[in-house]
Amino acid sequence: MLFLIGLGFGDCKDITVRGLEAVRQSSKVYLEAYTSILTVGAEELEKYYGKSIIQADRSFVEQKCDSMLQQALIEDVSFLVVGDPLAATTHSDLILRARKMGVKTQVIHNASIMNAVGCCGLQLYSFGETVSIVLWQDNWKPTSYYDKIASNRRAGLHTLCLLDIKIKEQSWENLARARDIFEPPRFMRVYEAAQQLIDILDIRSAEGATADSLAYSANSLAVGLARVGTDSQQIAAGSLRQLADSELTLGKPLHSLVLPSEKLHPLEWDMLEIYAIDENWFSENKSRYVKD
Amino acid sequence: MLFLIGLGFGDCKDITVRGLEAVRQSSKVYLEAYTSILTVGAEELEKYYGKSIIQADRSFVEQKCDSMLQQALIEDVSFLVVGDPLAATTHSDLILRARKMGVKTQVIHNASIMNAVGCCGLQLYSFGETVSIVLWQDNWKPTSYYDKIASNRRAGLHTLCLLDIKIKEQSWENLARARDIFEPPRFMRVYEAAQQLIDILDIRSAEGATADSLAYSANSLAVGLARVGTDSQQIAAGSLRQLADSELTLGKPLHSLVLPSEKLHPLEWDMLEIYAIDENWFSENKSRYVKD
Repeated sequence: MLFLIGLGFGDCKDITVRGLEAVRQSSKVYLEAYTSILTVGAEELEKYYGKSIIQADRSFVEQKCDSMLQQALIEDVSFLVVGDPLAATTHSDLILRARKMGVKTQVIHNASIMNAVGCCGLQLYSFGETVSIVLWQDNWKPTSYYDKIASNRRAGLHTLCLLDIKIKEQSWENLARARDIFEPPRFMRVYEAAQQLIDILDIRSAEGATADSLAYSANSLAVGLARVGTDSQQIAAGSLRQLADSELTLGKPLHSLVLPSEKLHPLEWDMLEIYAIDENWFSENKSRYVKD
Repeated sequence: MLFLIGLGFGDCKDITVRGLEAVRQSSKVYLEAYTSILTVGAEELEKYYGKSIIQADRSFVEQKCDSMLQQALIEDVSFLVVGDPLAATTHSDLILRARKMGVKTQVIHNASIMNAVGCCGLQLYSFGETVSIVLWQDNWKPTSYYDKIASNRRAGLHTLCLLDIKIKEQSWENLARARDIFEPPRFMRVYEAAQQLIDILDIRSAEGATADSLAYSANSLAVGLARVGTDSQQIAAGSLRQLADSELTLGKPLHSLVLPSEKLHPLEWDMLEIYAIDENWFSENKSRYVKD
């Protein structure tokens, strides 16, 4: 049996009791280590679970995955994933490969940012498509994701923006020379994402887009979230400009950004106000967002 | 401290280790019992947690909530919610009331249908707004939710449909006479929801809507899910008509229905095919949904 087990926010005790039992009965325990990061080190997980953990990076899943599945044919194997195991298609691929080899699979779900984002007070039912924002490079500055954000807003929906994570990236030079040297990990922060969005709004305005077609402005409400579900969770709500200017507010990764819809439920507004960067801004802008 | 603790899919062991510790250190444990149902009985939870559980129905949360918050001012109190505690605004209200009374709160997240729906293979990032489908009554047959489904589809997004749950409902007569007599619980099934959608398509066609504006037809792909995250989880994929005709396929509640977007990622299609009601239908319709 191959267990695909969600770790939630990645602290030892965020695993479910059912998940912990599966880990402890497994002969081998793998940790998916290329799409997200743990709150604690793998060593702490090892200590808590009483099991050695094999880190599975991108090349592992692409190249050595079959040997893991061979093991799972004859004994219990756990594959740990931060968040929920089936939020992205990557692990669908693993399940399909397992089926072809006759390996039974069992998914043990957990919380992920995709549902825990409700912690800011915005109603989950009212989120539209999730978008990913990538760190811009000198010669690559994609802006097309903004269309999805604007489309959600036109449909009256909030947008969750997942911010770029670069783990085990190689420089072009090291890649070309096939050297196993990796760049230090980089995690995009809320202030960077907010500034990038303002840059996109500026670019599109300069290209002639109207304020109406842009849907958002630098003075639109936005919500920054950091380390959701952990003891050090922080949330900051205010205008995009305020978030772009608050480099130090939210601290360490992981960060996510939410762009709320045009109209909010009064309870959504009241919850966001708890996290106001500037209470005056909230008083001045309430009538834009909440119907009396 | 008031802990708001997600139970995931409601089996004893679906709670996280962190959640279980909070329950065991609490003086009082309440179970939110009006928006969802448990997989196991409350007695089993009591046995497993080693704690008495007070069931909090709608009238409790509306009327006796303040006494629970008073307790939480002086000792640890747990408030258990099936799924994740913050998917709906109901519990935002509880947090806001707690803040006003000076009660500290801590949310312990868990999986919910809103992220575990990924188990069918459809990518979570590509879901639009979630809709609720209610059981039609003789004199009340709302169809407006269909506009949200069509709008998601036009934006290239999947739609998760949560199906009606009626718990502790009173007949008009018992309500009028203020008698505490409740109707037996009712849970909408996938086949009923699929038939209702076909009825709406028929009504709108008769009113002159074009096939294009309707976005779906009785021959469109749909996915029924039952008891997600439990040992008896079942998934069935096929046309809306096939789901409407398969009353016995998915068994007991809880059920949910997904209407996928017009185009699927090949891995999404391959995962859904595992759950095909009719493999021939999948072969015949693949080219409609997946680009080569």
